[in-house]
Amino acid sequence: VVGLGPAGDEWRTPAASARLAEATDVVGYQRYVDAVGPPRPGQVRHPSDNRQEAARARQALDLAASGRDVAVVSSGDPGVFAMATAVVEERHRRPDPAWEGVDLEVIPGVTAASAAAARIGAPLGHDFCTISLSDVLKPWSVVERRLDAAAGADFVLALYNPTSSQRPWQLAQALEVIGRHRSEHTPVVVARAVGSDEEAVAVVTLGSLDPGTIDMRTVLVVGSSTTEAYDDGTGRRWAYTPRSYER
Amino acid sequence: VVGLGPAGDEWRTPAASARLAEATDVVGYQRYVDAVGPPRPGQVRHPSDNRQEAARARQALDLAASGRDVAVVSSGDPGVFAMATAVVEERHRRPDPAWEGVDLEVIPGVTAASAAAARIGAPLGHDFCTISLSDVLKPWSVVERRLDAAAGADFVLALYNPTSSQRPWQLAQALEVIGRHRSEHTPVVVARAVGSDEEAVAVVTLGSLDPGTIDMRTVLVVGSSTTEAYDDGTGRRWAYTPRSYER
Repeated sequence: VVGLGPAGDEWRTPAASARLAEATDVVGYQRYVDAVGPPRPGQVRHPSDNRQEAARARQALDLAASGRDVAVVSSGDPGVFAMATAVVEERHRRPDPAWEGVDLEVIPGVTAASAAAARIGAPLGHDFCTISLSDVLKPWSVVERRLDAAAGADFVLALYNPTSSQRPWQLAQALEVIGRHRSEHTPVVVARAVGSDEEAVAVVTLGSLDPGTIDMRTVLVVGSSTTEAYDDGTGRRWAYTPRSYER
Repeated sequence: VVGLGPAGDEWRTPAASARLAEATDVVGYQRYVDAVGPPRPGQVRHPSDNRQEAARARQALDLAASGRDVAVVSSGDPGVFAMATAVVEERHRRPDPAWEGVDLEVIPGVTAASAAAARIGAPLGHDFCTISLSDVLKPWSVVERRLDAAAGADFVLALYNPTSSQRPWQLAQALEVIGRHRSEHTPVVVARAVGSDEEAVAVVTLGSLDPGTIDMRTVLVVGSSTTEAYDDGTGRRWAYTPRSYER
């Protein structure tokens, strides 16, 4: 299971590139398979639709059991809301005896929140929580409870999967929960498609953030009570959360 | 500010390697400056002691203002409890007019928790919090409050800086707080020096973890109520947190 890193080859680790070069088969969501680059001669690509994680994991384990050298690809870090979990879980919960000899390895990558943070300074420089706002695989009440607990304890919040066409109201509700504990002036990093040609990263405030402008390729970082934002004198804004915590 | 990734060149991004090759000066904690590898001809190294983050940031900004091409190095991701914060913060809080033309860039890296998780499966596959147990820069009461909130809301916990010779009792206290919300059978990943020759990664349980065996080069990942551990039939243990949350 190979982490491609955020879009852009310059953030892909040598370990990931080496495994992709060796693989006889590449399995993954269409967008990520395309991001691998051109296949080497003889390499077979197995792109699939989104939300097919369990089936994709089983396909990869079947291919590996048949003697193929398989790379399952995810963007960012495959261990954060991505394919490493699906593969490790399928092997445990619904094992096929044929998979017994399969040699499994996970190659970590730079996760989207790290790349987003780097573009704007260091908003993750102090304690933070990483939460997926998707309620496809967990009840929304769990998301709200976690947002409330994390915001109440003054963590910085890295929000993955903030919205989608199937989940139109959840982000506004999430911001309302966070707003119970945070000033409207709290810096929020809005990072879309970091590393790609479509990259757009900005620092706004919690009070001015319009959920309607956010899409599923965006990661949000909501500051804690100590997160600061400033202009560097050239018109560029930066944000950071101090390492020390003095209230 | 360049993230070296966890120990080992195979996890260092091409972006990081390119900046290190260009740099006229490398600034950082002695261990991380050494990890860069041999200097190219003419490259000046500026190693310093730990806990000198602010002074190191100012030294780097001074060198850059004088026209040098400076790489400030951190292991893992420089935005997570590391040097990116110190540089971005010093420039804001205690600015020197000489720094005005300095062009600042942060190169993200694979953070230690991602590397630790990859070695053992996917324990970070669901919502998680990243907390430094160091109370050098924040009151211990804040650490306890955050651990209590995060464990109570059933987050997985990635614990950085778990202990040191100056902080001998904090880890045991942290485990006591977490234990208010978690079974003694909860899987805990103990990952020491991942990627180095001294790497040691294991899955134990919350009830069996002995704080006395942990050192400052270790990252701990404490599972949520849904985190599972299993043996793959070859004697190797794996851990993961399912993407779906069903209680």
